[in-house]
Amino acid sequence: EPNTQYELLRRRIFSNTKEFWYFIHSGLLELQKRVQEATPDVSDHIQYMLNLGAEHKRSLLHDVDQLAEVDGYATWREKESNDLSELVQKRFRYLQNPADCKTAKKLICSLNKGCGYGCQLHHAVYCFMVAYGTKRTLILKSRGWRYHKAGWEEIFQPISDTCRDPSGESTSNWPGSADTQVLNLPIIDSLSPRPPFLPLAIPEDLAPRLTRLHGDPIVWWVGQILKYLLRPQPKTAAAIQETMTRMGFKRPIVGVHVRRTDKVGTEAAYHGIEEYMAAVEDYYKQLELKETIDKRRIYLATDDPKVILDAKNKYPQYEVIGDPSISKTAGISTRYSDSSLFGIINDIHMLSMSDYVVCTFSSQVCRVAYELMQNYFPDASARFRSLDDIYYYGGQNAHNTIAVLPHDPKKPGEMSVIAGDLIGVAGNHWNGFSKGRNLRTNQIALYPSFKVNDKIETAKFPTYAEVNKRDPEDQ
Amino acid sequence: EPNTQYELLRRRIFSNTKEFWYFIHSGLLELQKRVQEATPDVSDHIQYMLNLGAEHKRSLLHDVDQLAEVDGYATWREKESNDLSELVQKRFRYLQNPADCKTAKKLICSLNKGCGYGCQLHHAVYCFMVAYGTKRTLILKSRGWRYHKAGWEEIFQPISDTCRDPSGESTSNWPGSADTQVLNLPIIDSLSPRPPFLPLAIPEDLAPRLTRLHGDPIVWWVGQILKYLLRPQPKTAAAIQETMTRMGFKRPIVGVHVRRTDKVGTEAAYHGIEEYMAAVEDYYKQLELKETIDKRRIYLATDDPKVILDAKNKYPQYEVIGDPSISKTAGISTRYSDSSLFGIINDIHMLSMSDYVVCTFSSQVCRVAYELMQNYFPDASARFRSLDDIYYYGGQNAHNTIAVLPHDPKKPGEMSVIAGDLIGVAGNHWNGFSKGRNLRTNQIALYPSFKVNDKIETAKFPTYAEVNKRDPEDQ
Ligand SMILES: Nc1nc2c(ncn2[C@@H]2O[C@H](COP(=O)(O)OP(=O)(O)O)[C@@H](O)[C@H]2O)c(=O)[nH]1
Ligand SMILES: Nc1nc2c(ncn2[C@@H]2O[C@H](COP(=O)(O)OP(=O)(O)O)[C@@H](O)[C@H]2O)c(=O)[nH]1
Repeated sequence: EPNTQYELLRRRIFSNTKEFWYFIHSGLLELQKRVQEATPDVSDHIQYMLNLGAEHKRSLLHDVDQLAEVDGYATWREKESNDLSELVQKRFRYLQNPADCKTAKKLICSLNKGCGYGCQLHHAVYCFMVAYGTKRTLILKSRGWRYHKAGWEEIFQPISDTCRDPSGESTSNWPGSADTQVLNLPIIDSLSPRPPFLPLAIPEDLAPRLTRLHGDPIVWWVGQILKYLLRPQPKTAAAIQETMTRMGFKRPIVGVHVRRTDKVGTEAAYHGIEEYMAAVEDYYKQLELKETIDKRRIYLATDDPKVILDAKNKYPQYEVIGDPSISKTAGISTRYSDSSLFGIINDIHMLSMSDYVVCTFSSQVCRVAYELMQNYFPDASARFRSLDDIYYYGGQNAHNTIAVLPHDPKKPGEMSVIAGDLIGVAGNHWNGFSKGRNLRTNQIALYPSFKVNDKIETAKFPTYAEVNKRDPEDQ
Repeated sequence: EPNTQYELLRRRIFSNTKEFWYFIHSGLLELQKRVQEATPDVSDHIQYMLNLGAEHKRSLLHDVDQLAEVDGYATWREKESNDLSELVQKRFRYLQNPADCKTAKKLICSLNKGCGYGCQLHHAVYCFMVAYGTKRTLILKSRGWRYHKAGWEEIFQPISDTCRDPSGESTSNWPGSADTQVLNLPIIDSLSPRPPFLPLAIPEDLAPRLTRLHGDPIVWWVGQILKYLLRPQPKTAAAIQETMTRMGFKRPIVGVHVRRTDKVGTEAAYHGIEEYMAAVEDYYKQLELKETIDKRRIYLATDDPKVILDAKNKYPQYEVIGDPSISKTAGISTRYSDSSLFGIINDIHMLSMSDYVVCTFSSQVCRVAYELMQNYFPDASARFRSLDDIYYYGGQNAHNTIAVLPHDPKKPGEMSVIAGDLIGVAGNHWNGFSKGRNLRTNQIALYPSFKVNDKIETAKFPTYAEVNKRDPEDQ
């Protein structure tokens, strides 16, 4: 098995090669803007550098990617990924199926947050994290759910086989006390006091293994909880299967999510389809270094049916899989309905089954897809391109990074950094720089993204030692 | 132990990250030249990209370098390197010490090639390769040697303990026949027919191990032969030791070789000290990512004493180790003398003991140092920066590379390449491109260096199976 430093370094090289290119690429675009009219031959030279530079980058990324296939640890990664998933799924089943529901400690989570499907899934995941952290069986109250009035259990399997009764001897709102049998949990936005179990924290006992295996452990952790929560009812599974077959879902495929309607101009900026497709093209060009591609294919999910027609017109060389009628139900007027629920479940499933997703991480739809995607690869943390935000979890604690290289500001607006500084990251500008706050100096400024590593946050979750000892056959 | 693909890939990523930077760096310099007067702010922006781009590159190279320290194979590499060296040195001793010198097959090599010390070493190495390939004991005729009239054996240990007599029952000039006891070998330039044992070929039986271990197996092979040939007499060893101590040779140190006098303008172009020092600075900046450096130090060897004084003046922040009196003896009028020999032995030794060499590979002095350097690291193939040629061996057969990526010419003068093409390389322009001849199309043109891998040439040398079986104690 590989040592942790090796795995970290391998991923760091991959990600910093991308950062290197972001830097050069955006720098050259900037140059081109400045010289365009004045000196067309210079502009040509820049275009030349952009094209051949992109080839350099793709070749490097391809090679680094191959490292993981030839270093002899591929089998270990598969196994470790399966082992870890089995371990936590077993713990989840144990937590959710107490010996005696009458006396079991419970945490009540109401699926009535006034927001979309992705947002509500994240609400449920957050509840589950607190349940796991406090060793309380989670009870999901979903009667009257805006996406399906009859409730969650008609669509997904109940999150407990043995314990769905919210009653108990004593009930209180969060935080209550250790003795309170039943606790009601509010939405994360009004949670007080905040327990240590919130994102971006992962369970401390899993941290060494996860840090080695995965490029973004919190995403893995959320993905595991979603895996447990979203076990479909047979009817749901059949519907998904039927849709995949009907639409001709087939690998290789890039999942593209274009969020429009109510999101644009309020919570996120508009991005034209060309921006998404440039990232898709880059992905395929790199994949072509590895294998011959019969057909460049995308799965296109969107809440605006015009986007699908537009993409099909503009990219005839692509096979665009997408159903405008699904997008139609996703519009604001019909969003909270059974048929809309079917559409979003489908879209998220397809996105998560893709080889790569291109989207805006400002949308929870895409973040959920990305989280679920982690269930299909030992480490899918680099299988995305977000046009806006970096990954985050709504209501999360500070996302800190640790500087590993010093930085001397070279332009106004750049941060002064010494190695070891903690920097709270606000976002990546995808031009080689990220914006953040240096916790040592409080300076809010830009720093080169390659000079930091993510700080992995951990919390002392219970370790469920009693589960590990149980018969592995016993579910 | 690592698999070969992994080792190849790791080195390829390292070298292509450099190539990537050569490309961007020289492209930006070109841009800067074109816009300088017209748009000073654009010029500033380019300078900015150059500076921060260099930081990106160094960080990446540092990380790739670290891979080899954390992937768990460092110990294996050390051991494999020692094992391989012991194996071939044992074979060399066996070849050179036949049971009966009277009946032994012999190859005669005269150390009278009309050229410098490095050139003559390469002559002797070539003789040794043919001796090893034909299983003939090599007899070195060095009486009247231009660098030391009394002959090689006063400076270095005789290359045989038991067999130095050039006589035999039958003598002929190359190629003679298998039965001819004594063969005279001409210089490589007039060799005919050419046996398969010439550079860049390495022994086929060692190829799989060498290809895995080393980034440039032929350099390792030459280094092993030099190691055998150059075993110093005690007096020589003592003199070298004394000089190293007197001069204060100490790591970290970069060896710089500046070849001037007769070479410049005839066989090589002039390069100012600034060019060498830019490469030295880049090396140290990268090393500083790994360790704290007390003092930036160079060992400066040159045949022009002015260069040393000049460097000391221009780079006061550097510790410049170098002896102008050695350089003086290296001048053309005193070159072929005992004191000059002492100087060049010393200089080559110091250069080869450095952590990195900066020089012009057009000079055999530096190529010999680089070859010998391979004896001090499991793989020192990336520990150089040549300002002109890539590595070559005088009189070598074609140096071919294999295209692994296709290339569509984007400018006049660029080569059309499809994956699998053999390209005979003429040189690297250190701007991302190499020049060569495509053997499929016969086109002589430029191609991006990152799109090819070296073709490792092998020849069916004898495998000396009888040596491997002998008692390891028995020398
Ligand atoms: N079927 C479908 N529905 C979408 C899509 N994008 C947005 N929607 C709908 O709009 C809702 C957006 O709310 P939410 O999931 O919280 O994501 P966010 O608002 O984008 O962060 C989704 O839950 C869907 O109901 C899409 O691509 N496909
Ligand atoms: N001591 C010393 N001698 C040098 C140096 N550079 C060149 N020379 C002398 O010049 C000769 C050059 O001939 P050769 O070794 O064939 O190398 P080349 O001509 O540079 O390819 C050397 O052998 C030395 O005698 C140097 O840096 N130090």
